Amino acid sequence: MSVAKEAEIANAKYAASFTKGDLALPPQRKVAIVACMDARLDPARALGLEEGDAHVIRNAGGRVIDALRSIIISQQLLGTREIIIVHHTDCGMLTFTDEVIRDKIRADLHQNVDHIAFLPFGDLRQSVLDDVKLLKESPLVLDVPITGYLYEVETGKIIKF
Amino acid sequence: MSVAKEAEIANAKYAASFTKGDLALPPQRKVAIVACMDARLDPARALGLEEGDAHVIRNAGGRVIDALRSIIISQQLLGTREIIIVHHTDCGMLTFTDEVIRDKIRADLHQNVDHIAFLPFGDLRQSVLDDVKLLKESPLVLDVPITGYLYEVETGKIIKF
Repeated sequence: MSVAKEAEIANAKYAASFTKGDLALPPQRKVAIVACMDARLDPARALGLEEGDAHVIRNAGGRVIDALRSIIISQQLLGTREIIIVHHTDCGMLTFTDEVIRDKIRADLHQNVDHIAFLPFGDLRQSVLDDVKLLKESPLVLDVPITGYLYEVETGKIIKF
Repeated sequence: MSVAKEAEIANAKYAASFTKGDLALPPQRKVAIVACMDARLDPARALGLEEGDAHVIRNAGGRVIDALRSIIISQQLLGTREIIIVHHTDCGMLTFTDEVIRDKIRADLHQNVDHIAFLPFGDLRQSVLDDVKLLKESPLVLDVPITGYLYEVETGKIIKF
Protein backbone atom coordinates (compact mmCIF):
# COMPACT_ATOMS: atom_id res chain seq x y z
CA MET A 1 0.00 0.00 0.00
CA SER A 2 1.28 3.53 -0.73
CA VAL A 3 2.02 5.76 2.23
CA ALA A 4 -0.61 8.13 0.79
CA LYS A 5 -3.29 5.45 1.18
CA GLU A 6 -2.10 4.66 4.73
CA ALA A 7 -2.15 8.41 5.51
CA GLU A 8 -5.77 8.62 4.32
CA ILE A 9 -6.75 5.85 6.75
CA ALA A 10 -4.82 7.48 9.63
CA ASN A 11 -6.36 10.86 8.78
CA ALA A 12 -9.90 9.48 8.93
CA LYS A 13 -9.24 8.54 12.57
CA TYR A 14 -7.66 11.95 13.31
CA ALA A 15 -10.60 13.82 11.77
CA ALA A 16 -13.16 11.67 13.60
CA SER A 17 -12.07 13.10 16.96
CA PHE A 18 -11.00 16.54 15.69
CA THR A 19 -12.03 19.43 17.94
CA LYS A 20 -9.76 22.26 16.76
CA GLY A 21 -11.75 23.63 13.85
CA ASP A 22 -11.95 27.21 15.11
CA LEU A 23 -8.25 28.09 15.46
CA ALA A 24 -7.12 31.43 14.03
CA LEU A 25 -4.69 31.70 11.10
CA PRO A 26 -1.87 33.58 12.95
CA PRO A 27 0.18 31.32 15.26
CA GLN A 28 -1.14 31.70 18.81
CA ARG A 29 2.33 31.58 20.43
CA LYS A 30 3.78 34.00 17.84
CA VAL A 31 6.79 31.82 17.04
CA ALA A 32 8.34 30.37 13.90
CA ILE A 33 10.34 27.15 14.22
CA VAL A 34 12.99 26.35 11.58
CA ALA A 35 13.95 22.68 11.80
CA CYS A 36 15.52 19.94 9.74
CA MET A 37 13.23 17.66 7.69
CA ASP A 38 14.81 14.61 9.38
CA ALA A 39 12.34 11.80 9.98
CA ARG A 40 13.46 11.23 13.59
CA LEU A 41 12.66 14.78 14.68
CA ASP A 42 9.01 15.63 15.42
CA PRO A 43 9.11 19.33 16.39
CA ALA A 44 5.57 19.30 17.79
CA ARG A 45 6.15 16.37 20.16
CA ALA A 46 9.76 17.26 21.01
CA LEU A 47 9.01 20.94 21.78
CA GLY A 48 5.47 20.65 23.15
CA LEU A 49 3.53 22.33 20.35
CA GLU A 50 -0.20 21.96 19.80
CA GLU A 51 -2.15 22.68 16.63
CA GLY A 52 -2.41 26.48 16.26
CA ASP A 53 0.74 27.32 18.23
CA ALA A 54 3.60 27.87 15.79
CA HIS A 55 4.73 28.11 12.20
CA VAL A 56 6.93 25.12 11.49
CA ILE A 57 9.34 25.55 8.58
CA ARG A 58 11.40 22.47 7.70
CA ASN A 59 14.01 21.70 5.06
CA ALA A 60 17.14 19.62 4.58
CA GLY A 61 19.40 20.70 7.43
CA GLY A 62 17.01 23.27 8.88
CA ARG A 63 18.97 25.94 6.98
CA VAL A 64 17.60 29.45 7.50
CA ILE A 65 18.75 30.86 4.15
CA ASP A 66 16.38 28.36 2.52
CA ALA A 67 13.62 29.41 4.95
CA LEU A 68 13.89 33.16 4.40
CA ARG A 69 10.80 33.53 2.17
CA SER A 70 8.72 31.71 4.79
CA ILE A 71 10.21 33.65 7.73
CA ILE A 72 9.45 36.98 6.04
CA ILE A 73 5.83 35.93 5.40
CA SER A 74 5.55 34.63 8.98
CA GLN A 75 6.74 37.91 10.49
CA GLN A 76 5.34 40.47 8.05
CA LEU A 77 1.90 38.98 7.44
CA LEU A 78 1.20 36.64 10.36
CA GLY A 79 2.76 38.38 13.35
CA THR A 80 5.36 35.93 14.69
CA ARG A 81 7.91 37.60 16.96
CA GLU A 82 10.32 34.81 17.96
CA ILE A 83 12.40 32.27 16.02
CA ILE A 84 13.66 28.87 17.16
CA ILE A 85 16.21 26.97 15.03
CA VAL A 86 16.64 23.20 15.47
CA HIS A 87 19.45 21.19 13.85
CA HIS A 88 20.23 17.65 15.08
CA THR A 89 22.88 15.01 15.62
CA ASP A 90 23.58 12.41 12.90
CA CYS A 91 22.29 14.83 10.24
CA GLY A 92 22.46 13.76 6.60
CA MET A 93 23.94 17.18 5.78
CA LEU A 94 27.20 16.03 7.42
CA THR A 95 27.59 13.19 4.92
CA PHE A 96 28.14 14.92 1.58
CA THR A 97 29.41 17.98 -0.26
CA ASP A 98 27.92 20.01 -3.10
CA GLU A 99 30.42 18.32 -5.42
CA VAL A 100 29.28 14.81 -4.39
CA ILE A 101 25.57 15.40 -4.97
CA ARG A 102 26.13 17.41 -8.15
CA ASP A 103 28.27 14.58 -9.56
CA LYS A 104 25.62 12.01 -8.59
CA ILE A 105 22.85 13.94 -10.31
CA ARG A 106 25.01 14.44 -13.40
CA ALA A 107 25.71 10.70 -13.52
CA ASP A 108 22.26 9.35 -12.57
CA LEU A 109 19.83 11.96 -13.92
CA HIS A 110 22.04 13.53 -16.62
CA GLN A 111 21.24 16.98 -15.24
CA ASN A 112 23.51 19.87 -14.35
CA VAL A 113 22.66 21.29 -10.90
CA ASP A 114 25.78 23.39 -10.41
CA HIS A 115 23.41 26.34 -9.80
CA ILE A 116 21.89 24.70 -6.69
CA ALA A 117 23.60 25.22 -3.32
CA PHE A 118 22.64 22.13 -1.31
CA LEU A 119 23.84 23.73 1.97
CA PRO A 120 25.63 20.78 3.61
CA PHE A 121 27.78 21.44 6.68
CA GLY A 122 30.71 19.88 8.47
CA ASP A 123 30.12 20.94 12.08
CA LEU A 124 26.79 20.77 13.90
CA ARG A 125 27.49 23.43 16.52
CA GLN A 126 28.79 25.81 13.86
CA SER A 127 25.80 25.22 11.58
CA VAL A 128 23.44 26.32 14.39
CA LEU A 129 25.58 29.36 15.28
CA ASP A 130 25.90 30.35 11.60
CA ASP A 131 22.16 30.18 11.09
CA VAL A 132 21.36 32.22 14.21
CA LYS A 133 23.90 34.84 13.07
CA LEU A 134 22.54 34.95 9.53
CA LEU A 135 19.05 35.78 10.79
CA LYS A 136 20.27 38.27 13.40
CA GLU A 137 22.19 40.15 10.71
CA SER A 138 19.58 39.99 7.96
CA PRO A 139 17.88 43.33 7.25
CA LEU A 140 14.83 41.32 6.13
CA VAL A 141 14.31 39.74 9.56
CA LEU A 142 12.87 41.65 12.54
CA ASP A 143 14.93 42.13 15.71
CA VAL A 144 13.27 39.34 17.71
CA PRO A 145 14.57 36.63 20.09
CA ILE A 146 16.32 33.88 18.09
CA THR A 147 17.41 30.68 19.84
CA GLY A 148 19.40 27.85 18.28
CA TYR A 149 19.28 24.23 19.46
CA LEU A 150 20.85 20.92 18.61
CA TYR A 151 18.39 18.03 18.96
CA GLU A 152 19.97 14.73 19.97
CA VAL A 153 18.28 11.96 17.98
CA GLU A 154 19.84 9.48 20.43
CA THR A 155 18.24 10.96 23.57
CA GLY A 156 15.36 13.21 22.44
CA LYS A 157 17.02 16.15 24.22
CA ILE A 158 17.61 19.66 22.86
CA ILE A 159 20.86 21.47 23.70
CA LYS A 160 20.95 25.27 23.51
CA PHE A 161 23.89 26.96 21.77
CA MET B 1 8.51 33.58 29.25
CA SER B 2 9.93 33.06 25.75
CA VAL B 3 8.55 30.15 23.73
CA ALA B 4 12.15 28.86 23.64
CA LYS B 5 12.15 28.56 27.44
CA GLU B 6 8.74 26.86 27.40
CA ALA B 7 10.01 24.50 24.69
CA GLU B 8 12.98 23.54 26.89
CA ILE B 9 10.61 22.59 29.70
CA ALA B 10 8.35 20.59 27.37
CA ASN B 11 11.42 18.90 25.84
CA ALA B 12 12.68 17.75 29.23
CA LYS B 13 9.42 15.80 29.65
CA TYR B 14 9.64 14.39 26.11
CA ALA B 15 13.25 13.27 26.61
CA ALA B 16 12.48 11.70 29.99
CA SER B 17 10.29 9.06 28.37
CA PHE B 18 12.15 8.89 25.03
CA THR B 19 12.58 5.35 23.67
CA LYS B 20 13.41 5.97 20.00
CA GLY B 21 17.17 6.54 20.17
CA ASP B 22 18.10 3.82 17.70
CA LEU B 23 16.18 4.90 14.60
CA ALA B 24 18.07 4.93 11.30
CA LEU B 25 18.76 8.13 9.37
CA PRO B 26 16.82 7.20 6.16
CA PRO B 27 13.03 7.51 6.58
CA GLN B 28 11.58 4.09 7.32
CA ARG B 29 8.46 4.58 5.17
CA LYS B 30 10.51 6.05 2.29
CA VAL B 31 8.28 9.09 1.87
CA ALA B 32 8.80 12.86 1.76
CA ILE B 33 5.91 15.08 2.82
CA VAL B 34 5.79 18.68 1.53
CA ALA B 35 3.34 20.70 3.62
CA CYS B 36 2.51 24.28 4.52
CA MET B 37 4.12 25.78 7.65
CA ASP B 38 0.64 26.72 8.92
CA ALA B 39 0.32 26.43 12.70
CA ARG B 40 -3.00 24.57 12.54
CA LEU B 41 -1.59 21.68 10.49
CA ASP B 42 0.40 19.00 12.33
CA PRO B 43 1.46 16.59 9.56
CA ALA B 44 2.55 13.88 12.00
CA ARG B 45 -0.76 13.78 13.91
CA ALA B 46 -2.97 14.44 10.87
CA LEU B 47 -1.32 11.77 8.67
CA GLY B 48 -0.34 9.20 11.30
CA LEU B 49 3.45 9.57 11.23
CA GLU B 50 5.77 8.39 13.97
CA GLU B 51 9.35 9.49 14.58
CA GLY B 52 11.55 7.83 11.94
CA ASP B 53 8.82 7.47 9.30
CA ALA B 54 9.08 10.38 6.86
CA HIS B 55 10.94 13.46 5.78
CA VAL B 56 8.72 16.46 6.48
CA ILE B 57 9.49 19.56 4.43
CA ARG B 58 7.45 22.64 5.29
CA ASN B 59 7.35 26.20 4.00
CA ALA B 60 4.89 29.03 3.43
CA GLY B 61 2.20 27.48 1.24
CA GLY B 62 3.84 24.06 1.01
CA ARG B 63 5.22 25.12 -2.37
CA VAL B 64 7.33 22.44 -4.04
CA ILE B 65 9.57 24.81 -6.00
CA ASP B 66 10.86 26.07 -2.65
CA ALA B 67 11.30 22.46 -1.46
CA LEU B 68 13.29 21.22 -4.46
CA ARG B 69 16.72 21.23 -2.76
CA SER B 70 15.31 19.17 0.10
CA ILE B 71 13.41 16.76 -2.19
CA ILE B 72 16.55 16.10 -4.25
CA ILE B 73 18.57 15.35 -1.08
CA SER B 74 15.70 13.17 0.24
CA GLN B 75 15.58 11.06 -2.91
CA GLN B 76 19.22 11.01 -4.00
CA LEU B 77 20.90 10.52 -0.62
CA LEU B 78 18.24 9.14 1.71
CA GLY B 79 16.17 6.84 -0.49
CA THR B 80 12.62 8.23 -0.33
CA ARG B 81 10.42 6.96 -3.17
CA GLU B 82 7.06 8.67 -2.68
CA ILE B 83 5.97 12.30 -2.27
CA ILE B 84 2.85 13.66 -0.54
CA ILE B 85 1.92 17.34 -0.93
CA VAL B 86 -0.41 19.01 1.61
CA HIS B 87 -1.89 22.49 1.14
CA HIS B 88 -4.83 23.62 3.30
CA THR B 89 -7.98 25.73 3.52
CA ASP B 90 -7.79 29.32 4.86
CA CYS B 91 -4.13 29.54 3.80
CA GLY B 92 -2.28 32.82 4.31
CA MET B 93 -0.97 32.51 0.74
CA LEU B 94 -4.48 33.38 -0.50
CA THR B 95 -4.38 36.77 1.22
CA PHE B 96 -1.64 38.69 -0.57
CA THR B 97 0.31 39.23 -3.79
CA ASP B 98 4.03 39.66 -4.42
CA GLU B 99 3.33 43.37 -4.94
CA VAL B 100 1.63 43.73 -1.54
CA ILE B 101 4.42 42.12 0.49
CA ARG B 102 7.20 43.80 -1.52
CA ASP B 103 5.56 47.20 -0.91
CA LYS B 104 5.19 46.43 2.82
CA ILE B 105 8.87 45.49 3.16
CA ARG B 106 9.94 48.56 1.20
CA ALA B 107 7.84 50.78 3.51
CA ASP B 108 8.54 49.05 6.85
CA LEU B 109 12.08 47.69 6.48
CA HIS B 110 13.36 49.98 3.73
CA GLN B 111 14.52 46.95 1.76
CA ASN B 112 13.99 46.00 -1.86
CA VAL B 113 12.86 42.37 -2.20
CA ASP B 114 11.73 42.50 -5.81
CA HIS B 115 14.08 39.54 -6.38
CA ILE B 116 12.12 37.26 -4.02
CA ALA B 117 9.13 35.33 -5.39
CA PHE B 118 6.86 34.84 -2.38
CA LEU B 119 4.76 32.22 -4.22
CA PRO B 120 1.23 33.23 -3.14
CA PHE B 121 -1.73 31.66 -4.93
CA GLY B 122 -5.35 32.48 -5.66
CA ASP B 123 -6.91 29.01 -5.88
CA LEU B 124 -6.32 26.15 -3.44
CA ARG B 125 -7.21 23.28 -5.76
CA GLN B 126 -5.07 24.74 -8.52
CA SER B 127 -2.09 25.28 -6.19
CA VAL B 128 -2.09 21.57 -5.31
CA LEU B 129 -2.48 20.48 -8.94
CA ASP B 130 0.25 22.91 -10.06
CA ASP B 131 2.68 21.58 -7.46
CA VAL B 132 2.01 17.91 -8.28
CA LYS B 133 2.56 18.74 -11.98
CA LEU B 134 5.75 20.67 -11.33
CA LEU B 135 7.31 17.69 -9.54
CA LYS B 136 6.05 15.14 -12.09
CA GLU B 137 7.62 17.17 -14.90
CA SER B 138 10.89 18.04 -13.15
CA PRO B 139 13.93 16.21 -14.53
CA LEU B 140 15.47 16.52 -11.05
CA VAL B 141 12.73 14.48 -9.37
CA LEU B 142 12.47 10.68 -9.69
CA ASP B 143 9.39 9.08 -11.28
CA VAL B 144 7.69 8.11 -8.00
CA PRO B 145 4.07 8.25 -6.76
CA ILE B 146 3.10 11.86 -5.98
CA THR B 147 -0.22 12.59 -4.27
CA GLY B 148 -1.65 16.03 -3.56
CA TYR B 149 -4.08 16.81 -0.75
CA LEU B 150 -6.00 19.75 0.63
CA TYR B 151 -6.19 19.69 4.44
CA GLU B 152 -9.33 21.24 5.88
CA VAL B 153 -8.36 23.24 8.97
CA GLU B 154 -12.07 23.32 9.87
CA THR B 155 -12.53 19.52 10.00
CA GLY B 156 -9.06 17.94 10.21
CA LYS B 157 -9.79 16.01 6.99
CA ILE B 158 -7.57 15.65 3.92
CA ILE B 159 -9.13 15.71 0.45
CA LYS B 160 -7.25 14.12 -2.45
CA PHE B 161 -6.99 16.01 -5.73
